[in-house]
Amino acid sequence: MTEMSNPTAAVLIIGNEILSVRTQDSNLNSIAKKLSSLGIKLKEARVVPDVEDEIIAALNALRNRYTYVFTTGGIGATHDDITADSVARAFGLPIIENPEARARLEAHYTPANLNAARLRMARMPEGAALIDNPVSVAPGFRIENVYVMAGVPNIMQAMLDGVVAGLKHGATIYSVSVSGPVPENNVAEELGAIAANYPHLDIGSYPWFRVGKWGTALVVRGTDKVLVDEAADKLFALMAKQGIEPERE
Amino acid sequence: MTEMSNPTAAVLIIGNEILSVRTQDSNLNSIAKKLSSLGIKLKEARVVPDVEDEIIAALNALRNRYTYVFTTGGIGATHDDITADSVARAFGLPIIENPEARARLEAHYTPANLNAARLRMARMPEGAALIDNPVSVAPGFRIENVYVMAGVPNIMQAMLDGVVAGLKHGATIYSVSVSGPVPENNVAEELGAIAANYPHLDIGSYPWFRVGKWGTALVVRGTDKVLVDEAADKLFALMAKQGIEPERE
Repeated sequence: MTEMSNPTAAVLIIGNEILSVRTQDSNLNSIAKKLSSLGIKLKEARVVPDVEDEIIAALNALRNRYTYVFTTGGIGATHDDITADSVARAFGLPIIENPEARARLEAHYTPANLNAARLRMARMPEGAALIDNPVSVAPGFRIENVYVMAGVPNIMQAMLDGVVAGLKHGATIYSVSVSGPVPENNVAEELGAIAANYPHLDIGSYPWFRVGKWGTALVVRGTDKVLVDEAADKLFALMAKQGIEPERE
Repeated sequence: MTEMSNPTAAVLIIGNEILSVRTQDSNLNSIAKKLSSLGIKLKEARVVPDVEDEIIAALNALRNRYTYVFTTGGIGATHDDITADSVARAFGLPIIENPEARARLEAHYTPANLNAARLRMARMPEGAALIDNPVSVAPGFRIENVYVMAGVPNIMQAMLDGVVAGLKHGATIYSVSVSGPVPENNVAEELGAIAANYPHLDIGSYPWFRVGKWGTALVVRGTDKVLVDEAADKLFALMAKQGIEPERE
């Protein structure tokens, strides 16, 4: 795959709420979209609870394997926000009160409101670089290739928007989807033959079920736009041969 | 935590589409809900691409740690459906055409329609027990503590509904949420004190941001209903003290 030379990334979602019934995660999908637009290939994601050993084990596994790791969650002011401590331990760094982070909190809150809980949000591994939080001030931080961001989706997105300029971008990944009301099985064999002819492209088949009807989206992705379009033409022809009008996008 | 004695589980989501921009996963949340209702504690989730070595490494890490592993995705008929082969290799088992799975496909499809691609869906590790698919026939399968299910949400849910009777259930996990338009920081310190008083309960704080307004949901979970209700009363009092009317559910 030509995409192998693109920078890679993993997402580490930290929080009991994602593993309980409370919260449907949406951060993974929005990070995937942003990274894809930058040519950074998201290779893996993990969801771990607010348990220090679990966070450390996952973070160390991921940060040594991928160009970037993006974490979400656990950097607020409450007792269950233990991401900063866990990241510090994963890197073997002391955790300190970051002076710049404290200064930002002091500039935002009145002295009466800057309680011990709020000051927790300035605790970071020594040497961390701040990640701006234009929504609610309390910053995220970066240590080496690990970007530690908030879990609240709009804050996470604002933080991510702020760090992308500093990331290595890869070759743009082009993607074409050809979709229609055809059961996946009907096109599976010929699709396999097409995929075998394009070893440098990522060709996938995604069955869907809507309003009682089966369909399939065939998706081709790759960094070579000419090849992607050529393969997409073949996927379109394969679907059209089933007697339907495929949607191409 | 009393919940430590409950059965545990992990979810392994298999599929490039979840890591690309295409698909927002919804299976994790629906599995979490189902397991929670059974007293099975979901401890971890991973998302890996359709790459055999990645699937094997994740599966082996998870199946040795948790009571159950539930996988979703990659058991269809197309070239990128490699979950069955990967699971067989993870267990060191030969992959065979499962006779009962083949019989079910033969009963459903006309001979002309039962092509090689469809027959791929009968390939499973030797010794696999079938998981019924009341939606579209092609079964999932179980090997030891690993339940291999489809990725299409309504099929996954039907498969999961069919296997829960065979799972060890844990003590029911009770959960109460107390929510209101109060910034998390305002209650963080007292919340920490309450949480410290209930070491057998899982007490979390989840900030939210809706229609330009910050709020917090305080959530207590545990297997001792009396303790959960008692702690929930304290969380309610803490929120009410901020001058709002908390919602309790």
